[in-house]
Amino acid sequence: MKKRKVCVVVTARPSYSRVKTALTAIERHPDLELQLVVTGSAVLDRFGDASEFIQKDFPIAAKVYMVVEGENLVTSAKTAGLGLVELSTVFDNLRPDLVVTIADRYETLATATAAAFMNIPLVHIQGGEVSGSIDEKVRHAITKLADLHLVSTKRAAERVIRMGENPKAVFVTGCPSIDLADMALKEPQLNFDPFKKYGGVGTDFNHSDKYIVVMQHPVTTEVSNAQCHIMETLYSVTSIGLPTFWFWPNVDAGSDATSGGIRSFRETERSLSQNLHFFKNMLPDDFLKLLINSQCLIGNSSVGIRECSYLGVPVVNIGSRQEGRERGANVIDSSYEREEIAAAIRKQTDCDRPSQDKLYGDGKAGPQIAEILARAPLTIEKRLTF
Amino acid sequence: MKKRKVCVVVTARPSYSRVKTALTAIERHPDLELQLVVTGSAVLDRFGDASEFIQKDFPIAAKVYMVVEGENLVTSAKTAGLGLVELSTVFDNLRPDLVVTIADRYETLATATAAAFMNIPLVHIQGGEVSGSIDEKVRHAITKLADLHLVSTKRAAERVIRMGENPKAVFVTGCPSIDLADMALKEPQLNFDPFKKYGGVGTDFNHSDKYIVVMQHPVTTEVSNAQCHIMETLYSVTSIGLPTFWFWPNVDAGSDATSGGIRSFRETERSLSQNLHFFKNMLPDDFLKLLINSQCLIGNSSVGIRECSYLGVPVVNIGSRQEGRERGANVIDSSYEREEIAAAIRKQTDCDRPSQDKLYGDGKAGPQIAEILARAPLTIEKRLTF
Amino acid sequence: MKKRKVCVVVTARPSYSRVKTALTAIERHPDLELQLVVTGSAVLDRFGDASEFIQKDFPIAAKVYMVVEGENLVTSAKTAGLGLVELSTVFDNLRPDLVVTIADRYETLATATAAAFMNIPLVHIQGGEVSGSIDEKVRHAITKLADLHLVSTKRAAERVIRMGENPKAVFVTGCPSIDLADMALKEPQLNFDPFKKYGGVGTDFNHSDKYIVVMQHPVTTEVSNAQCHIMETLYSVTSIGLPTFWFWPNVDAGSDATSGGIRSFRETERSLSQNLHFFKNMLPDDFLKLLINSQCLIGNSSVGIRECSYLGVPVVNIGSRQEGRERGANVIDSSYEREEIAAAIRKQTDCDRPSQDKLYGDGKAGPQIAEILARAPLTIEKRLTF
Amino acid sequence: MKKRKVCVVVTARPSYSRVKTALTAIERHPDLELQLVVTGSAVLDRFGDASEFIQKDFPIAAKVYMVVEGENLVTSAKTAGLGLVELSTVFDNLRPDLVVTIADRYETLATATAAAFMNIPLVHIQGGEVSGSIDEKVRHAITKLADLHLVSTKRAAERVIRMGENPKAVFVTGCPSIDLADMALKEPQLNFDPFKKYGGVGTDFNHSDKYIVVMQHPVTTEVSNAQCHIMETLYSVTSIGLPTFWFWPNVDAGSDATSGGIRSFRETERSLSQNLHFFKNMLPDDFLKLLINSQCLIGNSSVGIRECSYLGVPVVNIGSRQEGRERGANVIDSSYEREEIAAAIRKQTDCDRPSQDKLYGDGKAGPQIAEILARAPLTIEKRLTF
Repeated sequence: MKKRKVCVVVTARPSYSRVKTALTAIERHPDLELQLVVTGSAVLDRFGDASEFIQKDFPIAAKVYMVVEGENLVTSAKTAGLGLVELSTVFDNLRPDLVVTIADRYETLATATAAAFMNIPLVHIQGGEVSGSIDEKVRHAITKLADLHLVSTKRAAERVIRMGENPKAVFVTGCPSIDLADMALKEPQLNFDPFKKYGGVGTDFNHSDKYIVVMQHPVTTEVSNAQCHIMETLYSVTSIGLPTFWFWPNVDAGSDATSGGIRSFRETERSLSQNLHFFKNMLPDDFLKLLINSQCLIGNSSVGIRECSYLGVPVVNIGSRQEGRERGANVIDSSYEREEIAAAIRKQTDCDRPSQDKLYGDGKAGPQIAEILARAPLTIEKRLTF
Repeated sequence: MKKRKVCVVVTARPSYSRVKTALTAIERHPDLELQLVVTGSAVLDRFGDASEFIQKDFPIAAKVYMVVEGENLVTSAKTAGLGLVELSTVFDNLRPDLVVTIADRYETLATATAAAFMNIPLVHIQGGEVSGSIDEKVRHAITKLADLHLVSTKRAAERVIRMGENPKAVFVTGCPSIDLADMALKEPQLNFDPFKKYGGVGTDFNHSDKYIVVMQHPVTTEVSNAQCHIMETLYSVTSIGLPTFWFWPNVDAGSDATSGGIRSFRETERSLSQNLHFFKNMLPDDFLKLLINSQCLIGNSSVGIRECSYLGVPVVNIGSRQEGRERGANVIDSSYEREEIAAAIRKQTDCDRPSQDKLYGDGKAGPQIAEILARAPLTIEKRLTF
Repeated sequence: MKKRKVCVVVTARPSYSRVKTALTAIERHPDLELQLVVTGSAVLDRFGDASEFIQKDFPIAAKVYMVVEGENLVTSAKTAGLGLVELSTVFDNLRPDLVVTIADRYETLATATAAAFMNIPLVHIQGGEVSGSIDEKVRHAITKLADLHLVSTKRAAERVIRMGENPKAVFVTGCPSIDLADMALKEPQLNFDPFKKYGGVGTDFNHSDKYIVVMQHPVTTEVSNAQCHIMETLYSVTSIGLPTFWFWPNVDAGSDATSGGIRSFRETERSLSQNLHFFKNMLPDDFLKLLINSQCLIGNSSVGIRECSYLGVPVVNIGSRQEGRERGANVIDSSYEREEIAAAIRKQTDCDRPSQDKLYGDGKAGPQIAEILARAPLTIEKRLTF
Repeated sequence: MKKRKVCVVVTARPSYSRVKTALTAIERHPDLELQLVVTGSAVLDRFGDASEFIQKDFPIAAKVYMVVEGENLVTSAKTAGLGLVELSTVFDNLRPDLVVTIADRYETLATATAAAFMNIPLVHIQGGEVSGSIDEKVRHAITKLADLHLVSTKRAAERVIRMGENPKAVFVTGCPSIDLADMALKEPQLNFDPFKKYGGVGTDFNHSDKYIVVMQHPVTTEVSNAQCHIMETLYSVTSIGLPTFWFWPNVDAGSDATSGGIRSFRETERSLSQNLHFFKNMLPDDFLKLLINSQCLIGNSSVGIRECSYLGVPVVNIGSRQEGRERGANVIDSSYEREEIAAAIRKQTDCDRPSQDKLYGDGKAGPQIAEILARAPLTIEKRLTF
């Protein structure tokens, strides 16, 4: 039997870490051949060029520049358009048997559209979830373009089926990000120096003490408030007095405002900034260990909802970005108000650690995904089931 | 109250005629301002540059070239990509309050994506239907990007709601194409000479005699068979011995093959081609009158399913393109086999005329659509209802 | 020594035949590796997909769709823009040591710009000539982007040097199209049946009788007159009464008008069209033999100026397209007026054959080009010499 | 007489200040109508969104996003390609009688190509100069696409004419940037607080003391050394011990490396960075006053060659970027070596001020340019003069 060529398109650093175990399982599977395409912010210096460390893990079949600069709504649309132009060339060259797209960032719709229009069976990982902002529309639109759905939770599978997809094309594999979390939990100690290894800017505090982690992205439907929102978080976090690892935002409409807010805070609030250190990115495994040893994760990253539920890390989830996502007992939700955020952080850092929750998977998603990609019947024809 | 700016994007001749009464109603509505964008094959000479006659009806706010030549699957994707790049500029200039996209041609996904990514409320006309090929995926993906759904039938409304859309955002307006059909029925006589008015190539037969009409497009998921399919239709139709008005296909993956098949048939089967006359396009009202006075419509155009049910015109619907669409008693389905097609044509031309069926509307869709566009609450935030 | 990778970009059928002997010589050269990119109208069915026969001669490294449909001035610019986007990806993948661009069609500026911006040494074949329309600007602009100039005539070399290029980077190789002409002259008999081999539409006359050949393209700065111009030629040629091989125009602003003129003439002037047969394209060698055995070539193709001077074929050159090009004694120039054209055709078909003229080369350009590509120092830095 | 519509395309902050007096003169001219298009890095936050202050001076007819992120050679080419796609739409909408492009940044070739392909007369400001890197190729390629040449110096006029341009289409207007310099010289005192007005990062030193100014961009043909080059400059400048106003680089291949070098220096050499303050941009007039009151300008900006010769400001010009440009007595050239740079700075800060040099104009370029645009015959047809 000829190996199935599986083309996985990674458009951002977090998506990569989220599917890494699936990539490994695909690469190792005797009936599959991996074609890894890296694009979007994952090839940009400004966002910590992820392609540099990805290529240490897997050969990269194509590296694609698709981001039209401007970081506003117009350039989001143009970026997706340029991505569609570019990815169709890539697929035409690679001739994959399957294209895999991950989650719901706006540019993943370019991957899905290119595959669907070129009659290549499309696999969607992490469909069926519910959230805020444009991601919600993108995610379900991809579901309607996809031929195979590999979802994280039972509820997600139910939703995909209720939307009219054939139940035989829907598989609950769990989220492969939980596989990494599972591996990290087996050797949880912080066995590296974050400042030496990752540089970044700000204070090099003692990371064996208690610390917190912040990762907050702009919400694309609330762009005009992005700077204001990050300011609230900056003031609340610095009011706690704990050393803090802070991550720059993803490239997105509004990320200039978020980054600008951080830069301005650093300049104007020098003493408050004493406890902060800013990183562009971190290897997935290192980041998970950083979380495991932290007092709390603050922000609106999906890591707080997903990996942290499995890791048992307390989370303060801010604003609307994760609205609608299923969550475990480790999460406290907060508005954008600095007082409410600060209160939630205090609550989380005072309490006992939450217990492990297998809501998003049992740590074996990668191999299950590879097996399904190797065995599932391939088709590009589908109909609403009702 | 400020008028709502309604930007309607027309990407093909048939889409235009399908929404013309809605455009008229929008233009006349005191609370709406029409911004008409014409693009796709509707601005190309090769497909009978529709923008030329459209601008006699309405001012065109922007004319956009987006078709990347090649008419294969790769260029379909590139066309949508270029469309997304171009339409985002257009929307940025026009700053509409609402964007309206029609039906399910592949390039309409570019319209929908541009609007959704730019946080402009998106209205989808003709969602919730079921059909074959890539249209199926595109239609439902647009549903998931759209904020307001103006559907043609009750079943369509049910489907959109079952996919998780808010019932308050779903309206059964009927299809505006039926409005035109209704107007044409009021003065049904063929009051023009098709050959003089539209030129085209082939025989100028006596059009007051009995005649048939053919309109067959390539099916994007069956591109490799497009030439073969049209050949079967050519042989079956010419075996009937009736004068025939034949329309060239839409620009689409495969249309070169369809056109090539027709050209080759004309050269090699000169005597069989005696009864055929080929047209690029016709004004909507003229086309409807041509249908009303015909014995039968043959092919795979949605006109056969929609307008012809209201007009009571017998139809032989060939192949998979309209699979899944609700149909009236006027339709006989056929495979691509020439014998089966010929038998169906004979059956349709021998029988009594079918009676009118209001399945797709009652002829008042246009004004209803305009009224909804003026009154419906505008939002870009939505969630699955389950 | 590592082989130099030479990427040649072919954007149209005529450019291919013009460099074929150079491609062969590059492929055979021990120090060179050929990377052939086929794009522009050379990959489009509508213009007789040249890539199909090219790939029988050479492996194609990349096939690129870049033509934005519309065939007007706006889409010319967009086509070049899309070509630039696409070719930069191609060069990034192929990593050539040299990029070769041919002549002066508008889309060749995309090749030149991509190479120059990516710091890849650029070789220009056929610079330094003078002509009408946008080609003039494109040709000299490419000269200013190019690092190595392989020109056809001594006058061309002088012009390139006078424009400020380093004389050491300018080589008179002759035009490789003359190599093919030289080969065709060695076995000049028409050893194939044009109708059987190439199909086309129109009358299958007796091609062993006297016949003429027509090839007329629209002039991009005279687009609005393209249909009118072709009409004059159609009436003058058909007035002569000789069987005629007629070639469809290149894809260009105005080619729809030219094609439309031909189609309309065929429909309305059926008896005048009796002597005409229309072809999309022909293998270069077959085309040269067709010319050798013809009474006369009519139109505005550069083949009339170049190959026909070497072949000694009489030519009626119409209009401004070849204005400024050096020409041999075989050419009579004519305005677009049908009477003047007809008079010139009669003069050419009555006279003795002109003698061979080596103005554009001696038939050994291909190997000379390959040798220069292998030996010339590679640089991307240059300065005006004054 | 109908006013001539003059479309000026500005792609970067420095280009804007360079033509500002011409824009004013065009706007005021009774026979001209200004259509100002702002694009490239001039619309990007990251480079100090110039469109924000431009729109205070002139109405902006179109704002275009064309920068594909990545800042490497591939994305330079893609940026020009996207620019060509976008600008052709803009010109199609604005229908200018003339398009004006300025100088030689790589993306200006997109402006020139769009205009030339669309048969719009193209005016080139600042052709005929000689310099290093890709600018050299771009500048002369634009000359060959342009119909009217408005140059800064007599030598430039001679070069343009020697390249084969019609002498009647070449005008020595001087550089409009000198007009601003002339105005600034009339009120030379530093009448604003740079730190309050422009923010930026770094030390707020006493700007009434002696200070120096640095502006150094990456050289596109030496991208791999960009970080190394800026490091040498950083060490040499900080060795002098004078307070320093330092400007971030233009968006260009290599600017990430330059910015990264600066960021890294600031983090690792905190004490050396004490005397530095970093700015994104400054209003042209403020910038000129900053220069007039400085001890010396260091880097490779063309401002050092042009404006500073008129202002009589000493300049240390580093590396190859301005190679070939005519220069006054105010300039000392230096290699990239830190010792050589430091020696040159010391020499310049020790000597007497150089006297004014009118090499690049007499301060009246703007009105002259407007007058020529209003009076020159418009044509798109040209031929080499030899």
